[in-house]
Amino acid sequence: MPRSETIKISEMKIITSISAMQKFSAVLKKRGKTIGFVPTMGALHSGHMQLVKKCTLENDFCVVSVFVNPTQFGPKEDFNRYPRTFLEDKKLCDSYSVDAIFFPNAAQMYPGNHKTSITVNELSDVLCGKFRIGHFSGVATVVAKLFNIVMPTNAYFGMKDYQQLKIIEHMCTDLNFPVRIIPCKTVRESSGLAISSRNKYLSNLEKENSSKIYAALIQAKKMILKGNNSCSKIKNTIINTLKTIPISKLDYVSICDSETLIEKKSAKAPALIAVAAYVGKTRLIDNILIEKP
Amino acid sequence: MPRSETIKISEMKIITSISAMQKFSAVLKKRGKTIGFVPTMGALHSGHMQLVKKCTLENDFCVVSVFVNPTQFGPKEDFNRYPRTFLEDKKLCDSYSVDAIFFPNAAQMYPGNHKTSITVNELSDVLCGKFRIGHFSGVATVVAKLFNIVMPTNAYFGMKDYQQLKIIEHMCTDLNFPVRIIPCKTVRESSGLAISSRNKYLSNLEKENSSKIYAALIQAKKMILKGNNSCSKIKNTIINTLKTIPISKLDYVSICDSETLIEKKSAKAPALIAVAAYVGKTRLIDNILIEKP
Repeated sequence: MPRSETIKISEMKIITSISAMQKFSAVLKKRGKTIGFVPTMGALHSGHMQLVKKCTLENDFCVVSVFVNPTQFGPKEDFNRYPRTFLEDKKLCDSYSVDAIFFPNAAQMYPGNHKTSITVNELSDVLCGKFRIGHFSGVATVVAKLFNIVMPTNAYFGMKDYQQLKIIEHMCTDLNFPVRIIPCKTVRESSGLAISSRNKYLSNLEKENSSKIYAALIQAKKMILKGNNSCSKIKNTIINTLKTIPISKLDYVSICDSETLIEKKSAKAPALIAVAAYVGKTRLIDNILIEKP
Repeated sequence: MPRSETIKISEMKIITSISAMQKFSAVLKKRGKTIGFVPTMGALHSGHMQLVKKCTLENDFCVVSVFVNPTQFGPKEDFNRYPRTFLEDKKLCDSYSVDAIFFPNAAQMYPGNHKTSITVNELSDVLCGKFRIGHFSGVATVVAKLFNIVMPTNAYFGMKDYQQLKIIEHMCTDLNFPVRIIPCKTVRESSGLAISSRNKYLSNLEKENSSKIYAALIQAKKMILKGNNSCSKIKNTIINTLKTIPISKLDYVSICDSETLIEKKSAKAPALIAVAAYVGKTRLIDNILIEKP
């Protein structure tokens, strides 16, 4: 049903309680409406808004969640300084015709005696999973919670967080959630830098330099498409480009299967090239897909 | 809404596909109907039927699942010989006015690349969890799957499997499943023996002897209500009674908190007394609650 035919809620709702969100969604579902869902940690940027745009177009109702999920941050990670900009997020959502923001607090999402965790094995152990222990378990668990709270028809995830996307897709299939996962292309600045809430941590110079990450990925993709199958040669080319940024720490450069995320022996399509590197104190990730020609 | 006012499906449905079950439930939910759910591994007995009876009384529609879940059996456990009696189960369900049986096969529930598991920490590590490694993760995962497939309003679980009940309750709360868990009292033979599908493994003599398990639990409860607070004395009394069966192996006798399942230092209400013991080759469990007077 096109959006114009839906019963339009006059004002965007801010829903802070789990039970109120569940009631809101249950009423919509009884009316036969589709619910699109964009889970976020706030600090909304044009990457998020691309998901929101697609979500409002493809569903009768669009719900955005804003929750900085503590369980997906490691003890030494940036949970405390993660940008929290709710008033701006709210304005942005309103201007994109979002119907409701689900904005719970941590005490409500994780009461003291929370004991349940969801693990998507294998997919969570590679790439970022090697460096961010427990991260993807935190992600899978909070997304399952949000699915049960928002009860979406469709849920939108960006491909910048490619491993997260694959883990959520797999969890959703394995646990039979009646939710369709919609992957959305990475949004980039004109420089090529993948847009991320963490880009706020970068100085202007760091930001300029960080655009070389994507340049290195494009260069690598070209090598593969030209028939260069040597993973080590391609990885070295990427590493040499990254050295010019300069990066302060390289977590990984990977050429892996785009579904299983297992390292490839030979760099042939279909594949994913993925990078995680620190620029100054900021950890950045990016990736590029090599699809079969 | 009383059951008589619901749209009665003329014949009980046997649903074997996940997508058909989800569609069936989605249609009912859109109509505003409540769905009661009794998950089982089949081999239905009067214990199960007590849940079914309550379920049909309290909901517009009653769905029973029959699935011998491989992931909750250990490699040396009785998965292969677990009783499978679907034709009898079907007749029994029909006679209790069940609306639909969900009867999937293992290949559908666990395709080759299943990777997701749910763990309810702490509650899964004690009592039977110490002896059946991975069992409760298998249970929690399959129940989450079944909740997403059947989408029940209310789900019924027997108190004979008390630890399972507490784990499911906790998972349901932690993951915000929009499902109410309804605990149902253990059904017993006139001898006191808790009814279980595994009782089929017992010889007549073993069955007669096994009734002493409940007798021991009652005796222990009386001791506590009389003011005897020594856990070791009470446990010894139980163990001495069990020795007369005779039992072939005792997994545990526990006096624990009825919510956290943590061993109590002093045997005071509220508490749970729980036993797991082998009679011959058959592992039996039973428990009794000591509520505050």
